[in-house]
Amino acid sequence: LDWHGPFIAVDWGTTNRRAWRIGVDGTVEDSLSDGAGITAVRAGGFAAEAATLRDRLGDLPMLLGGMIGSDRGWRNVPYVSCPADACSLVQGIVWIDPRTGIVPGVSQRDPQAPEVMRGEEVQIIGSLAHRTIPSDAVVCCPGTHSKWVRIEAGRIVRFATWMTGELFALLSRHSILAPLMTGKTEAGADFAAGVTASAEGDALGQLFALRAAALLDLPPPEIASNAASYASGLLIGTEMRAALARFDGQAPWFIGRADLCALYAAANAQMLGGGDQRQRVIDGEAAFRAGITAIIGELR
Amino acid sequence: LDWHGPFIAVDWGTTNRRAWRIGVDGTVEDSLSDGAGITAVRAGGFAAEAATLRDRLGDLPMLLGGMIGSDRGWRNVPYVSCPADACSLVQGIVWIDPRTGIVPGVSQRDPQAPEVMRGEEVQIIGSLAHRTIPSDAVVCCPGTHSKWVRIEAGRIVRFATWMTGELFALLSRHSILAPLMTGKTEAGADFAAGVTASAEGDALGQLFALRAAALLDLPPPEIASNAASYASGLLIGTEMRAALARFDGQAPWFIGRADLCALYAAANAQMLGGGDQRQRVIDGEAAFRAGITAIIGELR
Repeated sequence: LDWHGPFIAVDWGTTNRRAWRIGVDGTVEDSLSDGAGITAVRAGGFAAEAATLRDRLGDLPMLLGGMIGSDRGWRNVPYVSCPADACSLVQGIVWIDPRTGIVPGVSQRDPQAPEVMRGEEVQIIGSLAHRTIPSDAVVCCPGTHSKWVRIEAGRIVRFATWMTGELFALLSRHSILAPLMTGKTEAGADFAAGVTASAEGDALGQLFALRAAALLDLPPPEIASNAASYASGLLIGTEMRAALARFDGQAPWFIGRADLCALYAAANAQMLGGGDQRQRVIDGEAAFRAGITAIIGELR
Repeated sequence: LDWHGPFIAVDWGTTNRRAWRIGVDGTVEDSLSDGAGITAVRAGGFAAEAATLRDRLGDLPMLLGGMIGSDRGWRNVPYVSCPADACSLVQGIVWIDPRTGIVPGVSQRDPQAPEVMRGEEVQIIGSLAHRTIPSDAVVCCPGTHSKWVRIEAGRIVRFATWMTGELFALLSRHSILAPLMTGKTEAGADFAAGVTASAEGDALGQLFALRAAALLDLPPPEIASNAASYASGLLIGTEMRAALARFDGQAPWFIGRADLCALYAAANAQMLGGGDQRQRVIDGEAAFRAGITAIIGELR
């Protein structure tokens, strides 16, 4: 099989799917993005979905990463253990057929700190390959389950997960705070107030104040005028304090969605006092494409 | 109106309702408990619901407490401010008619720490009246929104809320951990392990380990065999460490549901090393009835 020509890279997550046709010079020739995440596909429907991707983007070799390799995806692809790099990911690829492979996730089989990731490892390998992060670094991938990852000598050696994004979603959709959390989450004064409040280390005890303030109709500035931003700052600040403590206070690189990375970079700048952190933000989609490209480079 | 005869006490909450006919000697002569909480009653339907209670329990004077006095209840009863006692609650009663009153909740109008409660104040007044707690004490009322309350000279002077119960419910119903949290929550080894883990002050970062351990199929005892109990211990331990710090480490009295109080008492005993805390647990329903009885004593 010839991996020297163009190929299709697919980031197939739980609720969304993105796919790109990458040309021989590494440029994006075509792409699609839709809501056909793995939970939207019936069991047995993945081969047809992959065929549809080829109909759209070209009849080409295809490498997939993310939750598509989980027990609810196309094939349950075993995790490769830390330390992990492009080479070990390549060895763990499960081939559906000779030109369709699923990249494995990474596990940390420490009984005291068990961890798993699927998808972030591709972004990290890509950032290392493009040298947008150094080969010794701490990386934060914000998301539903935010990952903090220690990279040593270009390998993923240790990581930890915070459920920050999921908790924020639960609070804003299902909790008693939901009616208050309808505003746009952004890195302004309310977000900064939440980050400051996180220093008390008592997020569980600070969230209810949002509702009490609303019920008591206390005047601004005592009420956060944007409760969603305040809650986001409180939760992200809580995560970041714990993560910085666990990762030796080393300023992280942020890989992911621009809006989430902006919030994390703002919280980080506020806490570490390091000024503008935006130069430490890396686009997650570009990093994913670079990762698949690097893995295909190992196949050549 | 004669408040010297029997009366009906109603604890009307968000999802449940309990009512008792209390005789002249203070004994419970009849009672009912059902799911007709305020969210199950259409707007304008409360008078008919109260008439139904009288049909069942007798055509008697009636005093109601709890969320029935909230903006989603029968009448939005203004909170009385801290410090609050039986006398100030009586002054804040809103009378639907001369023999049907709703007891107010209590607020803390501190812009730095706004707080509200509805229902717990009745339990606390009752426990003070019955001398089951001393007139200077710290009280913890576990629940969806757990309250910690400082009592000085028989008055509620200060309190704080933790969203522990709601967060546990969100995680066990809607989160990625939900499929793991189906076991019965009890104060055994897994609960104790959660309480121990809470010392790290990083609940957001420790919860995901439950899922990772399950995915990696790590053998016991590294996995908590009952994830619900572990998560409960982690969250209650997190609350308790923050609350004890805020309330000067004073061992609390627990007023509420027997099952919840047992969990809190176990966490407290584990953390403060004070041995069996069960003698500090007070039945919430008995405390509520005592509170309504004490308030009616002020009306006589």
